[in-house]
Amino acid sequence: MRLRKILLDHGGGGKASHDLIKETFLPQFNNPFLMELDDSAVFKVGKARLAFSTDSYVVEPIFFPGGDIGSLAIYGTINDLAMRGARPLYLSVGFIIEEGFDLSDLERILSSMKDAANKSQVLVVTGDTKVVSKGSVDKLFINTSGIGIIETNINISGQNAQIGDKVIISGTIGDHGIAVLSQREGLELEYPLKSDSAPLNKLVFEMLEASSNIHALRDPTRGGIGTSLNEIAVQSHVGIRIFEETIPIKEEVVGACELLGLDPLYVANEGKLLAFVDPHDVNKVLDKMRANEYGGEAQVIGEVVADHKGKVAMVTRIGGTRIVDMLTGDQLPRIC
Amino acid sequence: MRLRKILLDHGGGGKASHDLIKETFLPQFNNPFLMELDDSAVFKVGKARLAFSTDSYVVEPIFFPGGDIGSLAIYGTINDLAMRGARPLYLSVGFIIEEGFDLSDLERILSSMKDAANKSQVLVVTGDTKVVSKGSVDKLFINTSGIGIIETNINISGQNAQIGDKVIISGTIGDHGIAVLSQREGLELEYPLKSDSAPLNKLVFEMLEASSNIHALRDPTRGGIGTSLNEIAVQSHVGIRIFEETIPIKEEVVGACELLGLDPLYVANEGKLLAFVDPHDVNKVLDKMRANEYGGEAQVIGEVVADHKGKVAMVTRIGGTRIVDMLTGDQLPRIC
Repeated sequence: MRLRKILLDHGGGGKASHDLIKETFLPQFNNPFLMELDDSAVFKVGKARLAFSTDSYVVEPIFFPGGDIGSLAIYGTINDLAMRGARPLYLSVGFIIEEGFDLSDLERILSSMKDAANKSQVLVVTGDTKVVSKGSVDKLFINTSGIGIIETNINISGQNAQIGDKVIISGTIGDHGIAVLSQREGLELEYPLKSDSAPLNKLVFEMLEASSNIHALRDPTRGGIGTSLNEIAVQSHVGIRIFEETIPIKEEVVGACELLGLDPLYVANEGKLLAFVDPHDVNKVLDKMRANEYGGEAQVIGEVVADHKGKVAMVTRIGGTRIVDMLTGDQLPRIC
Repeated sequence: MRLRKILLDHGGGGKASHDLIKETFLPQFNNPFLMELDDSAVFKVGKARLAFSTDSYVVEPIFFPGGDIGSLAIYGTINDLAMRGARPLYLSVGFIIEEGFDLSDLERILSSMKDAANKSQVLVVTGDTKVVSKGSVDKLFINTSGIGIIETNINISGQNAQIGDKVIISGTIGDHGIAVLSQREGLELEYPLKSDSAPLNKLVFEMLEASSNIHALRDPTRGGIGTSLNEIAVQSHVGIRIFEETIPIKEEVVGACELLGLDPLYVANEGKLLAFVDPHDVNKVLDKMRANEYGGEAQVIGEVVADHKGKVAMVTRIGGTRIVDMLTGDQLPRIC
């Protein structure tokens, strides 16, 4: 008998999330925009091509090294727009606040959102605030939705990765997840980690100036690069091969993952992107990325192959090859 | 000393909500779009004039006579777009679900959202699902954001009510609030009430066909018509005078309000609108409204006056006049 309850796994961004969306959500809202299953929907209004995206933020704790729920909510939605090649323009913000929440904490979060919006050159143009009784929500949740404009005729989508494409990661993996988890669990790391939460719209803009052959972009948030690569392998009907030794990762993240029994491939990032780029343009794109404050450690970590369609394989440090499956289970609830 | 905690009142839609927005939110996000304080932000992208709106839905119980949290979330955001004269096009949906939530209930809500979207001719094009541990959220909250297009050069805003305008309500007041509250409190009403939750975009479209002199529209949700009229009096720097005996209200709503000690002027509606219309066009507009399924009981309930700017006065049944202030306190938490 099938379990008829929602589990934490269903929100983990991995296999259970994808199954829930495929089996429960998509049969109801079946339309070509949603069916693309990209970070944003893209459609035309008049002559303008727009991207539209939404995300709710439930991160716990709400303040963590390198950010807070407010800046995360601004950058997260900006990044989802940027992953379609859109220039983010306008955001909405919806708060659900627990009765008794400290007003100074709210002010601190709002101030951080303002700074994040200014830094990313977007405007918060509309909002909503609900307050619920004590115990009906854990402190404060934020939804942001955003609208961006796609100003060229590019078509960047998780469906468009091409065999031969190189796979680039913009920097080290796992920083956000480990920073939040360390704060939550009170772990004392020798070198304290900070979340990488950051706006990637300017980085994407510069990449697109360097090349018109960027086929797919994704920010590997919930579920980490393991899940994002699997999504693109499935969406584009291609195989992806990555090389473990090329993946940038901080020693502290490796150490914390060993301590906690986590696989860094599945740990959330909030200021990184994966890019699928035509091999002829890969050096031009890498140069641009490395000159940007959020792409300094950009690396080619793999390639798109004709084998094992819909799957991701990793050549390990010791030379073996293993299949990297989509995340099963939710190893880190409420990480974003 | 000022109380430095968020209270239920801050989410009630009335005075405390407005003060929180004015004192805490607006200083951070100061831009002309947000400062309009309308149901949607309106801006141009390319040559298209767009409306953009967001709302989170936390109604308790999630199923109530005449609707559920799903249809409410679709109609609520559609109506916020329609109140700027926009044709709603695309919606985003963000779910925050409590671990252990019944999958059949989720399916029922999704099915209701699908029907609501189809009925209103909008597409749900993007979404997000978070699951949080048991006790971190009460069952399920939904955010919807929406984009609409304004296809003519109309400028409908709460700022544009004109002295001399007639104030129209599209039907009976208080149905939604009393239906939800009765369900929540297990009240046995002699004639069970249903929520009026409904999409008003077609009604608005027909009103705009009848007249290009509709100056302001608002759907009196949280805080009821008392609060909405006050908002428009302040935004437009005008006085508003309404006549108690002209306000359509069901006997059962009057009875329930007496029983519960509620003022129906402050009880939420989810399928009604207030329109501020040039007096020369008022009959044309009323005729159109009364021919629509959601405007059958439309009535003129008042007028915009040069006196008592920023205030709402009501001529009572017995002929006296009283000031109708903005709602203070939250008489009905989690009504939408």
